[in-house]
Amino acid sequence: MRVGIAGITGRLGRLCAEEVEAQGLVLAGGVARTPDPKNHITDNAAILAASCDVVIDVSRADIVAHHAEVFARSACPWVLGTTGLDDTAQSAVLEASRSIPVLQAANFAPGLNVLLDLVRQLGVILPENEYDAEIVETHHRQKVDAPSGTALAIGAALAEGRGVSLADVGRIDRQGRREDGVIGFASLRSGQVVGEHTLTLTSDTEQITISHRAFDRRVFAQGAVKAAKWLPGQEPGLYGMADVFSR
Amino acid sequence: MRVGIAGITGRLGRLCAEEVEAQGLVLAGGVARTPDPKNHITDNAAILAASCDVVIDVSRADIVAHHAEVFARSACPWVLGTTGLDDTAQSAVLEASRSIPVLQAANFAPGLNVLLDLVRQLGVILPENEYDAEIVETHHRQKVDAPSGTALAIGAALAEGRGVSLADVGRIDRQGRREDGVIGFASLRSGQVVGEHTLTLTSDTEQITISHRAFDRRVFAQGAVKAAKWLPGQEPGLYGMADVFSR
Amino acid sequence: MRVGIAGITGRLGRLCAEEVEAQGLVLAGGVARTPDPKNHITDNAAILAASCDVVIDVSRADIVAHHAEVFARSACPWVLGTTGLDDTAQSAVLEASRSIPVLQAANFAPGLNVLLDLVRQLGVILPENEYDAEIVETHHRQKVDAPSGTALAIGAALAEGRGVSLADVGRIDRQGRREDGVIGFASLRSGQVVGEHTLTLTSDTEQITISHRAFDRRVFAQGAVKAAKWLPGQEPGLYGMADVFSR
Amino acid sequence: MRVGIAGITGRLGRLCAEEVEAQGLVLAGGVARTPDPKNHITDNAAILAASCDVVIDVSRADIVAHHAEVFARSACPWVLGTTGLDDTAQSAVLEASRSIPVLQAANFAPGLNVLLDLVRQLGVILPENEYDAEIVETHHRQKVDAPSGTALAIGAALAEGRGVSLADVGRIDRQGRREDGVIGFASLRSGQVVGEHTLTLTSDTEQITISHRAFDRRVFAQGAVKAAKWLPGQEPGLYGMADVFSR
Repeated sequence: MRVGIAGITGRLGRLCAEEVEAQGLVLAGGVARTPDPKNHITDNAAILAASCDVVIDVSRADIVAHHAEVFARSACPWVLGTTGLDDTAQSAVLEASRSIPVLQAANFAPGLNVLLDLVRQLGVILPENEYDAEIVETHHRQKVDAPSGTALAIGAALAEGRGVSLADVGRIDRQGRREDGVIGFASLRSGQVVGEHTLTLTSDTEQITISHRAFDRRVFAQGAVKAAKWLPGQEPGLYGMADVFSR
Repeated sequence: MRVGIAGITGRLGRLCAEEVEAQGLVLAGGVARTPDPKNHITDNAAILAASCDVVIDVSRADIVAHHAEVFARSACPWVLGTTGLDDTAQSAVLEASRSIPVLQAANFAPGLNVLLDLVRQLGVILPENEYDAEIVETHHRQKVDAPSGTALAIGAALAEGRGVSLADVGRIDRQGRREDGVIGFASLRSGQVVGEHTLTLTSDTEQITISHRAFDRRVFAQGAVKAAKWLPGQEPGLYGMADVFSR
Repeated sequence: MRVGIAGITGRLGRLCAEEVEAQGLVLAGGVARTPDPKNHITDNAAILAASCDVVIDVSRADIVAHHAEVFARSACPWVLGTTGLDDTAQSAVLEASRSIPVLQAANFAPGLNVLLDLVRQLGVILPENEYDAEIVETHHRQKVDAPSGTALAIGAALAEGRGVSLADVGRIDRQGRREDGVIGFASLRSGQVVGEHTLTLTSDTEQITISHRAFDRRVFAQGAVKAAKWLPGQEPGLYGMADVFSR
Repeated sequence: MRVGIAGITGRLGRLCAEEVEAQGLVLAGGVARTPDPKNHITDNAAILAASCDVVIDVSRADIVAHHAEVFARSACPWVLGTTGLDDTAQSAVLEASRSIPVLQAANFAPGLNVLLDLVRQLGVILPENEYDAEIVETHHRQKVDAPSGTALAIGAALAEGRGVSLADVGRIDRQGRREDGVIGFASLRSGQVVGEHTLTLTSDTEQITISHRAFDRRVFAQGAVKAAKWLPGQEPGLYGMADVFSR
């Protein structure tokens, strides 16, 4: 299996490239802003798509809509880990998934994806007006966006279980008295922390905490390559990591 | 509905008595070592059983086998929260559940019982030779037994998911190098901590944490009374708090 | 010793009143918006000051400047626990401390005040460009202001140790890449949490965490009454809880 | 400056060797059970001592007494990080420190050594019969000894502050009701956790937590090399990391 990597010169992109080879797959090349033909790096996604069986995309949010079009046209299965997509980009992903298999995940760590399902269940079972939800995430000091895509994915899973929309109940800035049913977010930036996420659900008498901690960025690359192995051969559609782990 | 309380003079027994009345039920009386007729407290469980529709039992482990026999003979539904039972006592509970409905729980907090189910799922999904399990519990300094019944219940739920027996894989004392697949326990005793339990599942690259914290002993009494409302009218059998919450 | 309480009808004010009597002191009365002569509650701080040896003030930030003037004129020692003061109010406190002894504290818990001193030491020892500082606080869902006065006090202690001003380096909203030397704050609101504060100092290779958790609001009342016992007889000046504990 | 490393083939020994060169010092060679002349590795500590200005010793507890004698005879300054010493070994270290400078530390992380001093202060200030002390440590699954040397160092610092001996008040196994004034230890073993230590001091109304987490084993090597730079030129005596950081 030949694997291409969009965003191959980024921190996670490089790790994915290493992991592709570590798992005995063929690294077909990559996409980056600055082409580097000696290392099979192009700035043209269509060229990469033509030479591989699946693309792992860990590039930038502002190029996702373009990739959606290119990979759909090339019939190239697409593992998408870029976060921070706006509505236009997300619509383009959905459109692409009508013609190719797309696996989209905010976080490729296996344990994190298992937790998302548990969080959804907690959302169904624990009444939102009794259990106050707060999500705290910590990442390294260079991270630009906040909250992290994974924190938003946890919030979305809880909101889904509660039958509400995160767009309605998510709160990023804390002001005044807590409203019933909101889901609060806080973002810490510290040292070289790889990624830590904690959800607390707190009633007047008890507190439930679910957390995830990644020790090593490599866990994300391993999950992405696992997804890349699984995706080709699937029907067109939008998949998540839960699909990979459940089969 | 008339509710009796075995162990009514203990810390949790008193809270259960208050909660029965707070929830508009009738407190039929209680069982304790020292009878106190003015307050409807007897040392004879059969007398209590004759005067109530359900008993909440938060007494001592060494009297459970006797209660099993008495409540079965009196056809009195039995909510059992006493922990630390030996095999003989546990067999007597099972025997009683052939003729009366028995609800047995290590912990009546609603969130804790929800977590037990999530822990079981984690046991199924996450391979035991990759994810090391450690359970830490903290309780007030007067607590005599360790690990807590609730910590053991969490361990048993994980073991069940993994398809193994806690009797085989549980480790209370830490010695030497960790063996694959064991479930470790640690018990802290501090101040007046009501009850805190944490399970960590740690692979080489990630860590998942599930915790529960009770802020107020009252949460246990509330759950016990909720169970007492639910139990009468059920078929004979052995139930858990999950049955109460799922209906 | 006769103790008056400003803000006596608030949650903490009521606990202080109970604690005054529990410790064998005389409760002289209180100040509140709505006078209640039967219970010795007036809306006139000067009247209260005239009838007591010390006032514990846990009222509102917008009345502190007025109290400063009244208690100074009455020569009444003043234990001040109200937080969220603006510059005008804080100047008035300073002015009052030229003529009466004033003890000002963001938090009366003994352990918290011990920690403030340790935090200051960490600020001196650990270089601010290597150790990223983040402060997280959790309080009950009714709390209106954020960050808590205690979180700000922790930040101020760290800033003092680092030789900088919290006004310059404190950051309440997280945006973009972390700047060197800033002190970040995050505020969670959950259930009936009494008060939890955590400071993390994180370098590329290690993390130090200092936290404080109050289990029971009574710990604040106990500290306030301890301060009220200590303050009368001191020279005019501005004191902190460290002065109470160190003697 | 020429630096030798005893235990050079162990995990920490290899990192120390890398760090010596990274910091521009000369790696004189090492001691290990199996000599490897090509790499300047001998099984004879005296030979190493003769060829270097300072030795970093991260070998095994059972060889420490022998090293004490050898390094003292060779007048070679000795940075000793091996833990788990018995009384005989510890006496030998003390004896050696009469003729050479010896720096002994359970943990070379700078933050950890700062915390030890704070813990000592907490021991002085917070009464032992009010504040229950529990120490929890987590390390990778291969670690053989428990509790870790660092956990014992934290306990010893607290005991020193309290004016008691850890030998008297330390408790490794939890049994029955907590006795006043004891210091409890719990050891978790999980995945590849580098090293986490937490001390809680819990009264009936509040809890203070102090923790340390090492993200990367390299932090220990960096501290050891820092100590090795500092030690030569000091008077004979027994030093700790606090001496290195305070000058």
